[in-house]
Amino acid sequence: MSKKGDARIPVGILGATGVVGQRLVRLLEDHPWFRLATVTASDRSAGLPYAEAARWIQSGPIPEEAADLVVRPTEPMAGVPMVFSALDSSVAGPLEKGFAEAGILVVSNASNHRMGRQVPLLVPEVNPEHLDLVDGQEYPEGGGIITNPNCSTIGLSLVLGPLHAAFGVEAVQVVTMQALSGAGLPGHAALEMQDNVIPFIPGEEEKLEEETLKILGVRGEGGVTPAAFPVSAQCNRVPVSDGHTALVSLKFVEPVSPEEAAAHLASFQGLPQELGLPFAPRRPIHVLSDHRHPQPRLHRDLEEGMAVSVGRIRPCRINDLRMVILSHNTVRGAAGGALLCGELAVAEKKIPGVRPPVPTDDR
Amino acid sequence: MSKKGDARIPVGILGATGVVGQRLVRLLEDHPWFRLATVTASDRSAGLPYAEAARWIQSGPIPEEAADLVVRPTEPMAGVPMVFSALDSSVAGPLEKGFAEAGILVVSNASNHRMGRQVPLLVPEVNPEHLDLVDGQEYPEGGGIITNPNCSTIGLSLVLGPLHAAFGVEAVQVVTMQALSGAGLPGHAALEMQDNVIPFIPGEEEKLEEETLKILGVRGEGGVTPAAFPVSAQCNRVPVSDGHTALVSLKFVEPVSPEEAAAHLASFQGLPQELGLPFAPRRPIHVLSDHRHPQPRLHRDLEEGMAVSVGRIRPCRINDLRMVILSHNTVRGAAGGALLCGELAVAEKKIPGVRPPVPTDDR
Amino acid sequence: MSKKGDARIPVGILGATGVVGQRLVRLLEDHPWFRLATVTASDRSAGLPYAEAARWIQSGPIPEEAADLVVRPTEPMAGVPMVFSALDSSVAGPLEKGFAEAGILVVSNASNHRMGRQVPLLVPEVNPEHLDLVDGQEYPEGGGIITNPNCSTIGLSLVLGPLHAAFGVEAVQVVTMQALSGAGLPGHAALEMQDNVIPFIPGEEEKLEEETLKILGVRGEGGVTPAAFPVSAQCNRVPVSDGHTALVSLKFVEPVSPEEAAAHLASFQGLPQELGLPFAPRRPIHVLSDHRHPQPRLHRDLEEGMAVSVGRIRPCRINDLRMVILSHNTVRGAAGGALLCGELAVAEKKIPGVRPPVPTDDR
Amino acid sequence: MSKKGDARIPVGILGATGVVGQRLVRLLEDHPWFRLATVTASDRSAGLPYAEAARWIQSGPIPEEAADLVVRPTEPMAGVPMVFSALDSSVAGPLEKGFAEAGILVVSNASNHRMGRQVPLLVPEVNPEHLDLVDGQEYPEGGGIITNPNCSTIGLSLVLGPLHAAFGVEAVQVVTMQALSGAGLPGHAALEMQDNVIPFIPGEEEKLEEETLKILGVRGEGGVTPAAFPVSAQCNRVPVSDGHTALVSLKFVEPVSPEEAAAHLASFQGLPQELGLPFAPRRPIHVLSDHRHPQPRLHRDLEEGMAVSVGRIRPCRINDLRMVILSHNTVRGAAGGALLCGELAVAEKKIPGVRPPVPTDDR
Repeated sequence: MSKKGDARIPVGILGATGVVGQRLVRLLEDHPWFRLATVTASDRSAGLPYAEAARWIQSGPIPEEAADLVVRPTEPMAGVPMVFSALDSSVAGPLEKGFAEAGILVVSNASNHRMGRQVPLLVPEVNPEHLDLVDGQEYPEGGGIITNPNCSTIGLSLVLGPLHAAFGVEAVQVVTMQALSGAGLPGHAALEMQDNVIPFIPGEEEKLEEETLKILGVRGEGGVTPAAFPVSAQCNRVPVSDGHTALVSLKFVEPVSPEEAAAHLASFQGLPQELGLPFAPRRPIHVLSDHRHPQPRLHRDLEEGMAVSVGRIRPCRINDLRMVILSHNTVRGAAGGALLCGELAVAEKKIPGVRPPVPTDDR
Repeated sequence: MSKKGDARIPVGILGATGVVGQRLVRLLEDHPWFRLATVTASDRSAGLPYAEAARWIQSGPIPEEAADLVVRPTEPMAGVPMVFSALDSSVAGPLEKGFAEAGILVVSNASNHRMGRQVPLLVPEVNPEHLDLVDGQEYPEGGGIITNPNCSTIGLSLVLGPLHAAFGVEAVQVVTMQALSGAGLPGHAALEMQDNVIPFIPGEEEKLEEETLKILGVRGEGGVTPAAFPVSAQCNRVPVSDGHTALVSLKFVEPVSPEEAAAHLASFQGLPQELGLPFAPRRPIHVLSDHRHPQPRLHRDLEEGMAVSVGRIRPCRINDLRMVILSHNTVRGAAGGALLCGELAVAEKKIPGVRPPVPTDDR
Repeated sequence: MSKKGDARIPVGILGATGVVGQRLVRLLEDHPWFRLATVTASDRSAGLPYAEAARWIQSGPIPEEAADLVVRPTEPMAGVPMVFSALDSSVAGPLEKGFAEAGILVVSNASNHRMGRQVPLLVPEVNPEHLDLVDGQEYPEGGGIITNPNCSTIGLSLVLGPLHAAFGVEAVQVVTMQALSGAGLPGHAALEMQDNVIPFIPGEEEKLEEETLKILGVRGEGGVTPAAFPVSAQCNRVPVSDGHTALVSLKFVEPVSPEEAAAHLASFQGLPQELGLPFAPRRPIHVLSDHRHPQPRLHRDLEEGMAVSVGRIRPCRINDLRMVILSHNTVRGAAGGALLCGELAVAEKKIPGVRPPVPTDDR
Repeated sequence: MSKKGDARIPVGILGATGVVGQRLVRLLEDHPWFRLATVTASDRSAGLPYAEAARWIQSGPIPEEAADLVVRPTEPMAGVPMVFSALDSSVAGPLEKGFAEAGILVVSNASNHRMGRQVPLLVPEVNPEHLDLVDGQEYPEGGGIITNPNCSTIGLSLVLGPLHAAFGVEAVQVVTMQALSGAGLPGHAALEMQDNVIPFIPGEEEKLEEETLKILGVRGEGGVTPAAFPVSAQCNRVPVSDGHTALVSLKFVEPVSPEEAAAHLASFQGLPQELGLPFAPRRPIHVLSDHRHPQPRLHRDLEEGMAVSVGRIRPCRINDLRMVILSHNTVRGAAGGALLCGELAVAEKKIPGVRPPVPTDDR
């Protein structure tokens, strides 16, 4: 599909051999706006063809465009105005900064810069106006960092966003059952997870509790004022390949019935839908009526994994509503979410001289 | 191991071929007080040797005592003062009543009679005094019905019991991750559960929300006054063979720190421990300090599956405490729990003329 | 996608609510030649909309074309020249015969008629010439029965076919690790399969041992003379959702090296490829070089699940070669395989007056 | 259970923190002959209490005897006449030799020395006479190395042994489905194994093909003459925690019916049974008649995991017999098998001055 005369925007993937990096490679195949021009990884892999460097665990073969790319060390390169970072948080901080300083826009999945004062933490349907924070970053023209939230946070925030706007969230109790791919590779040992669940994921509860409030916060002078309600989280790992499930109980300022909430969520549309961004799902939130739904294996791939599904909306005996939220953690919750952020940045002209190569309603 | 001159109390199992029935068969092997004298099942199985009638799915072979017992239809029999019922709730109601009317004490795992006004719903460490309700039942001498709570409820109540007594529970948010054996046989299709979790178990949330309040309630004239706090539950099925995990957030009348709660739970002892009942765990509640614990595969078998384990006791951003509770759903949560109820009934002389054959501190 | 003026051939699915039936519904969505016109199921479901009758377990939503179809009882209907049968073998025999007698061409996944003297048992790349057997069937014009082999047999035969033609197979040792979906719904209980494998599948070994020989046999007067070599099979169920793996050891008449065999398989093309049938994979057999491949989760979906993958081709210490074969049991091994048989039948003009609505090289 | 005045033989475990090392710790709890006196691990762990050094993944708590032992570096120590080695084969070779040179008898699970000319490769029921090879080793008095075969090989050899003795094995086709614990920790990534099987285990097929022949070989001057029949193996990893399944097809010199083979296996007794060694199963081989058996979850724990179970003994269309063999890979196939070898060495007086502390028929 890659052609000579390709008018698409050349992009890079930082940390392209891990779980999220592989997913980015896969999703960029035939992307209408972006062309995968370069991949980076640790020094150990640098110099190898991508097909050799990656221990490919995606279903389906490595896209031909990517297979022969020679893996480069993770250093700024010319000719690539935007990179998607799937770097591990143990190294992402300074590396991503280096790219921004070199005048490249970094769309990052890593947690390092998420809570930075001038760093947008984006769920494009929920807080697209936060993108403008990037204008206040002190990087050379074209350079900057925008971030994709934690994989559990994205699904939760995408549902809380419209509810908060309409009814005012006052408290959020959330328990998650998270998929194995969320831990990356190697992640958990198979023997540990066999016939088992693990009721702890390091750092995850704090991310869910804090990132959610920044996303639902209000952009002002010099940063975001976070939303003021408490979020209490318990995160668990379960033996599922992909798909994070969140069990939530919500308290609102305005009384709201299950039916109202369901109708509001089902009809929700955001800026990405308006702009017709390539990776925008037609309906960001699918409300399911069967009591047994949503389920990871049945619903994680709705709208190519970019839609979130919600079920069992019902009264709670303590708060106002209970519901179940499912999202594809490596698509919507990571690689696909980052692509959508990148598309938004391009559509909103955050990269000087870079414009969508095709009309945005053409998906 | 069954010997001539066996002084043990002959008991029966109603519905002996299902998951809980099989577990009862296994646990009764070499029980110091009880001797398995008879097993019943549906008419389809009646007349067959138990080894043929049961599609045995327990690890290890069928106990020899049980293998050759001829399965009987589920009708009252002579010479058996007590039966353990693992009948399906679709048929248990009238069948169990028939046994009580025939002067037999029924210890039931079925849900049918649990909420009956004069029916004890017992977690022997928590509400042993409720056992006396049985005295008010209008069955012939020796006859009566006592019940074992739902498998999720038992683990939760065993932990809430001492906390409520000490600090006064005001609200309970609970999300469960429940094992496959809780659904009995055939239960879920393997294909449904493969690489999946299911966020719904029919009737389970209601049981958790209501039974807990009866167990923690106060016995008075003509029944139990249920505890008055709200319980909100979300129950999920996960691909684990045995072991229910409960993720809870608790609000108390009295402020309590994680350390206080942990110390209180770890030192808790109930009447079964005092009486030295054969199936009483030495410590009913094991408090674990590793953040990654409790886990079904590692901790479900603590004290032969009769102890509950609790971990991650910590502050909650909304209520007072969060914690994780694990219990073996077919041992403590069903078969073993029922045996303990039966032992308590014998120790408390609820069956005329029937006494423990050996001293109670001899386990 | 269904349009007025649709020139596609109307087809039906018999037994549309089961695992294979659901897969047929999914694969027929947007099929270039066939339009799903009717679905049948047991009387219990008849009269309901398909979306209600089917307990949908496919990933992704029910295709809109199918959701609103009213389920009919499994009886011949007018206006549908061809049906795909996913009926259970307990009822398929006479029901399928009824359709053939009504002048309808039945493409069946059921085992009942497979070994019939005049019944083609087809793997379209391997024995397309067997299709002509249908001409000898004594049904009214347009009526007939053609069959798709057992799900394990298809993958094995597709690989044995070209090897047998080139080198002459003399003996086949085969052990399978078969997916849960092969057992249909409900199939195995989740509790049985948890942390387990089961070394027995009723009737499966016989099918593998016998159907393979018919497929590789020679069509002659009055039927097929089966191939003459022995096949010895051991079939196992493993906890995998989709994808049957076969571990084979092969003895040949002509000595053949692993490299020769690999090259021969990798370049193999059959009549469906020549004809450009819509469901024909470009390369029916993918030869993989990584020792760890093929694996169900990574390779079952190659070419939309229609290609078979082969790995670890190496010398055997007893026979000539060992290798590992993987195929998607509900796509290539059932629903997709049946569609390919149906496409072949249409391309070969086995249905009077019915022709492909579009050129065959248009996929 | 450890008491002052304990007359048991002090033993050590080398590499005590891994999967097999942990299992050894667990099995040595309350061993009637051996007392766990010391544990070693890599330098990283040395100096820590065992309870801290081991990432304990066994069901049940760490035995108290072991929890407080301080982990030592893997160097010879005084006062311990015998050690069980669970060292990784990347380091085991010279380390084990060092212990032998220090006059300590090493019973090893590692593969390094297994094929050494003077090194016994023992399945105590099958080739106990090979133990005498150790007398020819050139280590100081008391020092020596005896080895436990590969985990898959043990189960296979224990069944082939009596069959070969009675009927003469001529060829062995074997396919395995091996448990996760066989890969140690961390072993496979959970994400790799989820909804998957992997048809390759590095080095495993060679071990199965070669070790089996040494075990069934004849001890002579200067070593063992291996058995002369071919073994062809295909090894697979499946998502099961413990329990290796082997699917075998066997050719014999003497014709043998399934019934004869079954009767012969079921009644088989070896020297460990005669001697009443503590870890000797009463019946080494359990022959099961249900077609669906053996299964890992149901049968791996037969006789505490020390017995092998065999099912589906039936004619093969190519060779003489097919059957299914199941063994617990970390008990019989590793830790328990090594203990039995150690017991045999003590009973056979291979350690000067060391004798069983209790009569051997006392289990």
